[in-house]
Amino acid sequence: MMKEALYHRPKLNWSFAYDERTIVLRLRAKRDDLAEADVLYGDKFEPFDKMSEAPMRRAFADELFEYWEVDVQPEFKRLAYAFRLRSGEETYWFSEKGIGSAAPDEHFGMFEFPFLHASELFRPPVWVRDAVFYQIFPERFANGDKSNDPDSVLPWGGKPEWYNYFGGDLQGVLDRLDHLSELGVNAIYFTPLFQARTNHKYDTEDYLRVDAHFGDNRLLKKLVDACHARGIRVMLDAVFNHAGGTFAPFLDVKAKGAASRYADWFHVRSFPLEKVDGVPTYDAFAFEDHMPKLNTANPEVQEYLLRVARYWIEEVGIDGWRLDVANEVDHAFWRKFRDVVKAANPECYILGEMFNDAIMWLQGDQFDATMNYPFTGTVLDFFARGKLDARGFADALQRQLASYSRQVNEAMFNLLDSHDTPRLLTVCGGDARLLRLAVLFQLTYLGAPCIYYGDEVGMAGAGDPDCRRCMVWDPAAQDRELFAFYREAIALRRAHAALRGAGGIRFLLAEPGDARVLYERAGDGERFLVALNRDKAEAAFPLPEAPGVRWTPAFASAGAALAGGGAALTLPAYGYAVLRADAAR
Amino acid sequence: MMKEALYHRPKLNWSFAYDERTIVLRLRAKRDDLAEADVLYGDKFEPFDKMSEAPMRRAFADELFEYWEVDVQPEFKRLAYAFRLRSGEETYWFSEKGIGSAAPDEHFGMFEFPFLHASELFRPPVWVRDAVFYQIFPERFANGDKSNDPDSVLPWGGKPEWYNYFGGDLQGVLDRLDHLSELGVNAIYFTPLFQARTNHKYDTEDYLRVDAHFGDNRLLKKLVDACHARGIRVMLDAVFNHAGGTFAPFLDVKAKGAASRYADWFHVRSFPLEKVDGVPTYDAFAFEDHMPKLNTANPEVQEYLLRVARYWIEEVGIDGWRLDVANEVDHAFWRKFRDVVKAANPECYILGEMFNDAIMWLQGDQFDATMNYPFTGTVLDFFARGKLDARGFADALQRQLASYSRQVNEAMFNLLDSHDTPRLLTVCGGDARLLRLAVLFQLTYLGAPCIYYGDEVGMAGAGDPDCRRCMVWDPAAQDRELFAFYREAIALRRAHAALRGAGGIRFLLAEPGDARVLYERAGDGERFLVALNRDKAEAAFPLPEAPGVRWTPAFASAGAALAGGGAALTLPAYGYAVLRADAAR
Repeated sequence: MMKEALYHRPKLNWSFAYDERTIVLRLRAKRDDLAEADVLYGDKFEPFDKMSEAPMRRAFADELFEYWEVDVQPEFKRLAYAFRLRSGEETYWFSEKGIGSAAPDEHFGMFEFPFLHASELFRPPVWVRDAVFYQIFPERFANGDKSNDPDSVLPWGGKPEWYNYFGGDLQGVLDRLDHLSELGVNAIYFTPLFQARTNHKYDTEDYLRVDAHFGDNRLLKKLVDACHARGIRVMLDAVFNHAGGTFAPFLDVKAKGAASRYADWFHVRSFPLEKVDGVPTYDAFAFEDHMPKLNTANPEVQEYLLRVARYWIEEVGIDGWRLDVANEVDHAFWRKFRDVVKAANPECYILGEMFNDAIMWLQGDQFDATMNYPFTGTVLDFFARGKLDARGFADALQRQLASYSRQVNEAMFNLLDSHDTPRLLTVCGGDARLLRLAVLFQLTYLGAPCIYYGDEVGMAGAGDPDCRRCMVWDPAAQDRELFAFYREAIALRRAHAALRGAGGIRFLLAEPGDARVLYERAGDGERFLVALNRDKAEAAFPLPEAPGVRWTPAFASAGAALAGGGAALTLPAYGYAVLRADAAR
Repeated sequence: MMKEALYHRPKLNWSFAYDERTIVLRLRAKRDDLAEADVLYGDKFEPFDKMSEAPMRRAFADELFEYWEVDVQPEFKRLAYAFRLRSGEETYWFSEKGIGSAAPDEHFGMFEFPFLHASELFRPPVWVRDAVFYQIFPERFANGDKSNDPDSVLPWGGKPEWYNYFGGDLQGVLDRLDHLSELGVNAIYFTPLFQARTNHKYDTEDYLRVDAHFGDNRLLKKLVDACHARGIRVMLDAVFNHAGGTFAPFLDVKAKGAASRYADWFHVRSFPLEKVDGVPTYDAFAFEDHMPKLNTANPEVQEYLLRVARYWIEEVGIDGWRLDVANEVDHAFWRKFRDVVKAANPECYILGEMFNDAIMWLQGDQFDATMNYPFTGTVLDFFARGKLDARGFADALQRQLASYSRQVNEAMFNLLDSHDTPRLLTVCGGDARLLRLAVLFQLTYLGAPCIYYGDEVGMAGAGDPDCRRCMVWDPAAQDRELFAFYREAIALRRAHAALRGAGGIRFLLAEPGDARVLYERAGDGERFLVALNRDKAEAAFPLPEAPGVRWTPAFASAGAALAGGGAALTLPAYGYAVLRADAAR
């Protein structure tokens, strides 16, 4: 046994409460090293001979490791535990004391999950598991009201630049809700809506007012109500890491320097506020002088931003806050933010923008989930860029799943592109067949998928600003076949809980040097297989033996064919199929 | 290179801010596997070619692993980084993406420490580094006022039982402060002082009143003032996990059941409150029905306990809170507790009672340190029980040090025994030579040592209740030679910052199958070697080559001898020596 590969440390993703009774224990070992793993567990205040045992199961595997899991339910909420690991002739015990051959004979020195507090239970909003998000960049989605256009407005459909405007607004969204309903999404993520100078609005001037070019607060309320009436939830973008260069407190400090009553609202290194050799004399987002970093340790700033957080929930009824540059804001602020937000709406989704491992923000006291860019990278590397083989793809995803708790994985925000990245179709080199595979994977994976506006009708676009083109509304210019694909795939997901957030994923086929992926999704009394052929040639997918089961295509590309009485599946180049397990007649 | 042994994950003990400018990065690798490790680091918003490199150093080693460290100072507080590792002919890069041979060429995918917030900086009170604690169990330390004795009081020096009383009180402590000053300690840890029914007072009846058998609030204030006048700080015991069976709110729930206005102050599984088959119908400390667990998620309970926390700081001026059964209370409560306590006294020491790995409580938002029972176990296993060899001893300690941040290690509460364990001398089988070695190690190690009352005069005692014997005040019954040893060793520590909390430890000799330990302690312009011979035979200690240095004994047992012009040291069985590096003439 490779002792050096073994890893377990209580809390984080290694031991966590999943519900009021259940604690999940997870253990890492070298891949293909353990034959068996069991947990010895019990209450440390009961006699040691009352300890129980339970077998663990291989839950995930990646390039180097396997992750074994077990769910236990400690009667009195206190849990002491140790692992017994068998590999060939060797048996080791792994406890907090280390790895040794002697079985523990006392609670002292075992791992502990000291107490399962119901108040600490991490429960992201349940609706997120069932959500399909649609991301809207408001300046470019639809212009429903010419009267509020910026003076410099350009004709719809022009070339997007960093500083130009096309007049998109909230009335435009309101006018186009039928499009969203037809597509089947049930949640919108809006990039910022509040008063700001840029077209992207990430430089907030007034956090309590909808940007005049987008509409006003009443119109946003009307839009949110209209969405709710259709069963569509609404998430806004909270840009709390930094304000805009025209934010009144910042202008005050710019004018008055250290004498400003807002001097401590920012992280000022030296007065006056200016840019010296390309670097502002104050902390900023990146080195952008028009995006001064807010001092979220200042109680006045906290009070202000928390009022903003509450205002839009209470006044407008939003269902989620996406947090911009979330990892550069202090943890203490986000804890207060969560308290305020969840008090105003316990089902409000708190989503952090983070590009990195976010475990320290995902303990139940800060965010519900993060924008899952590691997922994005893996899916694109396999389906779009062809940089990964099937094994590398499955390994990378499982490594991600193993790095978070189960409830976080179920609530993750799984995007394939956004206003910050090239569009999916463009990353796919314009090949909609690859795009379909990636999207079908996204829509049959755990976590909440998000579709970037326009992807569903075949919009392309390189990185910012090209990915922020005006939405194509002319049906003749839209890829309606692609739209139908999206609509059907979304409908499939929404019809079957087993394909949504909850329920694990089991890879049945994902071999080195191969481009076929076959995985199982099960839950809620249903069971599906999903087969995706990333290969440019037809390929056969052996299906698992499943006595009493007949595999029924629920959704498939042209040319998908079951053979051998349901024992195998053949897919054409870039083909796909979702098979449902029905009872054999 | 054994890739499976490599470990790094941002935050916790792996990357942490040590001061407003410095971030410490720590990396784990298989022992003796790496020849070299470097970090590539920089600001993710600067061009990639502006990244810097710095070599890492081996900071710790344990049985399986080495821990490499580097301190970096990111100019704009944002840090992206990756590690370059060399082993033989192999070179690998270790980043958040994994372990591979390609050097990173962009910030994306590197590890990140997103922003160093001064407000999040974890700074345990500096005085703790310089503290030598003395633990007092008040009922058994000294009876200074016969008038407040319990009715059932027994003559001083009788056999301690779970339910008997000997009349110890605060006046007794006040009368005996000269003993503490003579010993040289500068901090007291009192087990609970508040009104309660038992002799140990861990079943609080009234959190705002000193137990009548101990004195009253005014007397405690007088005692704290007297301590402060002598430069002695005072830490009290906060028993907030559970109350006592006579706590008024609990009695109310007992009487009125679910109708009590305090019904939600406890974790009640079913009414009425009773014990069924040995298990209370409510959560309790262990299964003790007279220690009902408090519902610290209830805002009323929070308000009450936080008032208590503040009260004793503001009214009496205490310098620390030791938190009983700290790990069974929810994190959110401890965060509020820290905010309240540090607002009342920023230098108040917050010490959690935990027997296990406490990393999730030691991030700067909850405790400053924990009672270091893993340290206790290791020191006793080597010096007292002889269960570990020198290598196992050094490995276990370094494993502990690697598991926490540097500032936590400097603030750890290093005890060798307490009211909950057998006394040190007893664990040493009555052999004061072993005890001296253990104590000298404790007093020359980083972290704050604590001496359990009476150990310094040779008191013995098995587990609870025998370890709670009455303090021996008759000089003829005291081991005065031992007292002198303690006094001198404490004075040595207090005279030299290099021997105290700050500054690392470097083991120079700790071999398998051996009982000699030699280590270096350096800092503040001074450098010491400490040699401890746990062997029953005389032993030679090779000293490190140190050009220009003359080793001068600063403290040594009889029979310690330098030889070879200072190149070697000989110690008799169970001998010890502390050598100071002086400039050679």
